[in-house]
Amino acid sequence: MGAGLGHDRYGKSGIRVATVRRHDDRHDFSDWTVDVRLEGDFLAAHVDGDNTEILPTDTMRGATYALAKEHSGVEIEEFGLLLTEYLLGAAPAATLAEVSIEEQPWERIEAGGEPHSHAFTRAAYRRTARVTRTREDADVSAGVADLVLLKTTDSAFRGFIKDRYTTLPETDDRILATSMTAEWRYERTGLDYRKVADEARRIAMETFARHDSKSMQHTLYAMGEAVLEGCPNVAEIRFMLPNLHHIEVDLSPYGMENHGEVFVATDRPFGLIEGTVVRRTS
Amino acid sequence: MGAGLGHDRYGKSGIRVATVRRHDDRHDFSDWTVDVRLEGDFLAAHVDGDNTEILPTDTMRGATYALAKEHSGVEIEEFGLLLTEYLLGAAPAATLAEVSIEEQPWERIEAGGEPHSHAFTRAAYRRTARVTRTREDADVSAGVADLVLLKTTDSAFRGFIKDRYTTLPETDDRILATSMTAEWRYERTGLDYRKVADEARRIAMETFARHDSKSMQHTLYAMGEAVLEGCPNVAEIRFMLPNLHHIEVDLSPYGMENHGEVFVATDRPFGLIEGTVVRRTS
Amino acid sequence: MGAGLGHDRYGKSGIRVATVRRHDDRHDFSDWTVDVRLEGDFLAAHVDGDNTEILPTDTMRGATYALAKEHSGVEIEEFGLLLTEYLLGAAPAATLAEVSIEEQPWERIEAGGEPHSHAFTRAAYRRTARVTRTREDADVSAGVADLVLLKTTDSAFRGFIKDRYTTLPETDDRILATSMTAEWRYERTGLDYRKVADEARRIAMETFARHDSKSMQHTLYAMGEAVLEGCPNVAEIRFMLPNLHHIEVDLSPYGMENHGEVFVATDRPFGLIEGTVVRRTS
Amino acid sequence: MGAGLGHDRYGKSGIRVATVRRHDDRHDFSDWTVDVRLEGDFLAAHVDGDNTEILPTDTMRGATYALAKEHSGVEIEEFGLLLTEYLLGAAPAATLAEVSIEEQPWERIEAGGEPHSHAFTRAAYRRTARVTRTREDADVSAGVADLVLLKTTDSAFRGFIKDRYTTLPETDDRILATSMTAEWRYERTGLDYRKVADEARRIAMETFARHDSKSMQHTLYAMGEAVLEGCPNVAEIRFMLPNLHHIEVDLSPYGMENHGEVFVATDRPFGLIEGTVVRRTS
Repeated sequence: MGAGLGHDRYGKSGIRVATVRRHDDRHDFSDWTVDVRLEGDFLAAHVDGDNTEILPTDTMRGATYALAKEHSGVEIEEFGLLLTEYLLGAAPAATLAEVSIEEQPWERIEAGGEPHSHAFTRAAYRRTARVTRTREDADVSAGVADLVLLKTTDSAFRGFIKDRYTTLPETDDRILATSMTAEWRYERTGLDYRKVADEARRIAMETFARHDSKSMQHTLYAMGEAVLEGCPNVAEIRFMLPNLHHIEVDLSPYGMENHGEVFVATDRPFGLIEGTVVRRTS
Repeated sequence: MGAGLGHDRYGKSGIRVATVRRHDDRHDFSDWTVDVRLEGDFLAAHVDGDNTEILPTDTMRGATYALAKEHSGVEIEEFGLLLTEYLLGAAPAATLAEVSIEEQPWERIEAGGEPHSHAFTRAAYRRTARVTRTREDADVSAGVADLVLLKTTDSAFRGFIKDRYTTLPETDDRILATSMTAEWRYERTGLDYRKVADEARRIAMETFARHDSKSMQHTLYAMGEAVLEGCPNVAEIRFMLPNLHHIEVDLSPYGMENHGEVFVATDRPFGLIEGTVVRRTS
Repeated sequence: MGAGLGHDRYGKSGIRVATVRRHDDRHDFSDWTVDVRLEGDFLAAHVDGDNTEILPTDTMRGATYALAKEHSGVEIEEFGLLLTEYLLGAAPAATLAEVSIEEQPWERIEAGGEPHSHAFTRAAYRRTARVTRTREDADVSAGVADLVLLKTTDSAFRGFIKDRYTTLPETDDRILATSMTAEWRYERTGLDYRKVADEARRIAMETFARHDSKSMQHTLYAMGEAVLEGCPNVAEIRFMLPNLHHIEVDLSPYGMENHGEVFVATDRPFGLIEGTVVRRTS
Repeated sequence: MGAGLGHDRYGKSGIRVATVRRHDDRHDFSDWTVDVRLEGDFLAAHVDGDNTEILPTDTMRGATYALAKEHSGVEIEEFGLLLTEYLLGAAPAATLAEVSIEEQPWERIEAGGEPHSHAFTRAAYRRTARVTRTREDADVSAGVADLVLLKTTDSAFRGFIKDRYTTLPETDDRILATSMTAEWRYERTGLDYRKVADEARRIAMETFARHDSKSMQHTLYAMGEAVLEGCPNVAEIRFMLPNLHHIEVDLSPYGMENHGEVFVATDRPFGLIEGTVVRRTS
């Protein structure tokens, strides 16, 4: 018997990089958390402890800071393209570099009825990008994370399978809530990424609000279809939608009826619905 | 030698209660997390295992749901007054009841250019209230939690003590950031609590933005002074302000100068500045 | 243009199930968190809101509790086999069922110099299992999560790539620390899973301690090789090893030298090393 | 109207300091997280932005590292005494210094049937100390944090108040579980702190195991009484005991009876029982 190396990868996670751009009339502020991964032929490092082909994760960190300085003002999708390019250049044994970025958006504080020039408050969601680059080409995805949505009606769940372990009643009217994580793949590079990303997020939120939901899967598909329709440069979109259950409290022991008024929000367990909506060119 | 009972208290933490009010043209949604505490003479329970004077924490939970149904639409300050009143009535041995509530605000999703009637997205901060009631009277406080603020300039830190462990350079220009938790005490009950709370939060944020800061303490005091000035029914305000350090990255190893452009946001350690600003009637 | 459904799956996460087995002389206690996933043809649910083929996630929760009662005392690998079997039977449209279980081990409290019969304290790591079942066969994996390990010497890192972003010095002696997550695949079912799992964990820990490490990758491979050697029924093992950096503090500003005595443990960023060691039958 | 400064304090939180002591035959490793607070007359800093009396929190961090080097091998109680002494000396305006330390214990990995000389695995709880020093004297406390305990029987809860919101049934046999945080005050300094702390933790755990519990309060008091009896140098002990509820699952919808076999562990809400047991010298 012997042992061999299967799939491996390594990198740096949680590189925090904030930047300030100092314009005459205002400052722009950005706040990123960057994850970097390399895949390739790193057999000697594993088997022999020979680090000749290893680009240290500390260098990935340094390069992130340096590139953030050199390419001030770029969007996270572009930054991912730049950083993966550096990484494949610096690590000859690497066959693939992946950079994931979470951007924490900040909104300008209102002061005197106007957005302040250099003071900010943190927004409630995060914007994401992921670039995967091989020696041949690069794939650019982007998305949102932890965008929490809730509707108090227009959500049903009925007609499902019943068996000996079924206790859930059918319902025509429930609270539907989720903490949306979505990731879409761009059909090409060179886009106004920020504009597409803002539009995709807006469409997903508006569709969630307006949809007459028969299930979380049903709403997932409707959001995906609407984003693909409204964003021609999005090739496909994947959603990860935890079902943040809100359960109507049984008030009958207290001699009261609960007409959809009082709910308990539960943490665990939670449903988790995942799906990809793809563009069909028939 | 013998043992005796010193200070004790007990209660229920993390009671999640969400409510929907169904108007003809819209739904209102509220999302609270309630903590309940009782203090009093519970010696027999501790020493003898005699639970005659113990109101179970499970009953505190049930009462929270029932009162949320009965008093639909009240603000969290009023709910704290109602729940503490029930608690002292239900537990004769209790001398004090404290109810703390965190309200997670939700904002209406924009759909078709208008706020949607029944779909919401979670806001980035929380609103709080705390009511402490004895057999004689009740104290009402309120505040905000985890309101994250940042400014990219107008923040200095200099003129401090230097000793053998000092390495921090003086600075005229740094990033100042915090996750604000504030709690103010109302001078009386029967107020339009929501209105005062919104105004206090607005003033604190605007003062943070506009202040020419010499330190986090300096900004804390300025915010407190402004809230007391703008909110006549606030008797005092306490802040807990972690200093979310943003450290300028040393780019010199890469042959670059960093003119306040690239920062690393650090998690630990962090400064923690706490202080109360009180109204003086001289 | 049209839209279609790509890959999708759904299930329940975070099902907490604890069980007590009441023997004459002692109680056994187990503490599991179960995640369930189904994949298959759920197109109608997504596109039309037709739930005919949907097994509700609430039913998955109920089935978990009921099976835990019926099959008291089984190991988590066996439970995954049972629960996936139920799931494929209950959901005709499903082509694959996956069940992941995290077991929180509890150790008996010592009382009077002996392990207590029914009182426990929580252990510092978790044991895991994952069963993936199709209509044809089932795959059984298991592992450990968050097993935190540290060694104060016998760890070097040198001979790596240097470029313009390199600032990390080479070192012959550093602290090496990780929070180990490992998952191995069993070569067959019907094993004494607990025995193999305990042996794999023991070997990994002992190898971590004894290895003369040239890098985290080097230690990863050594641990994998040792587990494969010592556990004939393990086909392959995958590690996810965050590098919990301990950085020597620069004490020179205080006029002191630091000979590997005082370190700061950092949270972010952290290296993340992943790799699979496979059995070779040449 | 005017504003004034009420109670204020400031300091550094989350200072991570790990130390290695290199003996000939083994290494000792310690892992601390230190919080520092100062109180005093810092009015000018708040009102005028005058930092003359401010010892920067960054200096507190530096002093922590330097003292850890100078006083290698001391227990956390002694370190708190040393660091508070430095702080009052360095900050003339301070009237009180408080240092809280959480020590993460690590246990030696077993290798070849023996404890390894320099490889460790993290224990499941933390040890704490807190020193509060004024210009006159110093108070030393210590404790444990997040020590999770559970018993499967010998726990009842009955005879409590019933009212219109009561739904909890009385029980003679339930699971009792908690994540213990305890803090005791030493009667004097100059003790073998580690020995007392180990004994106090052992006694609390053993008492939890053996006690015939009528409520969490009842067990709290029994643990406190036993620690005071067994540790003559402990003046008083305070417990904070969340009640980690384990609720018997209703299996009747599945046609099964649940004889205390299957439970769901819930996260929220949870009971929270706090109390101090003091030494009486009558």
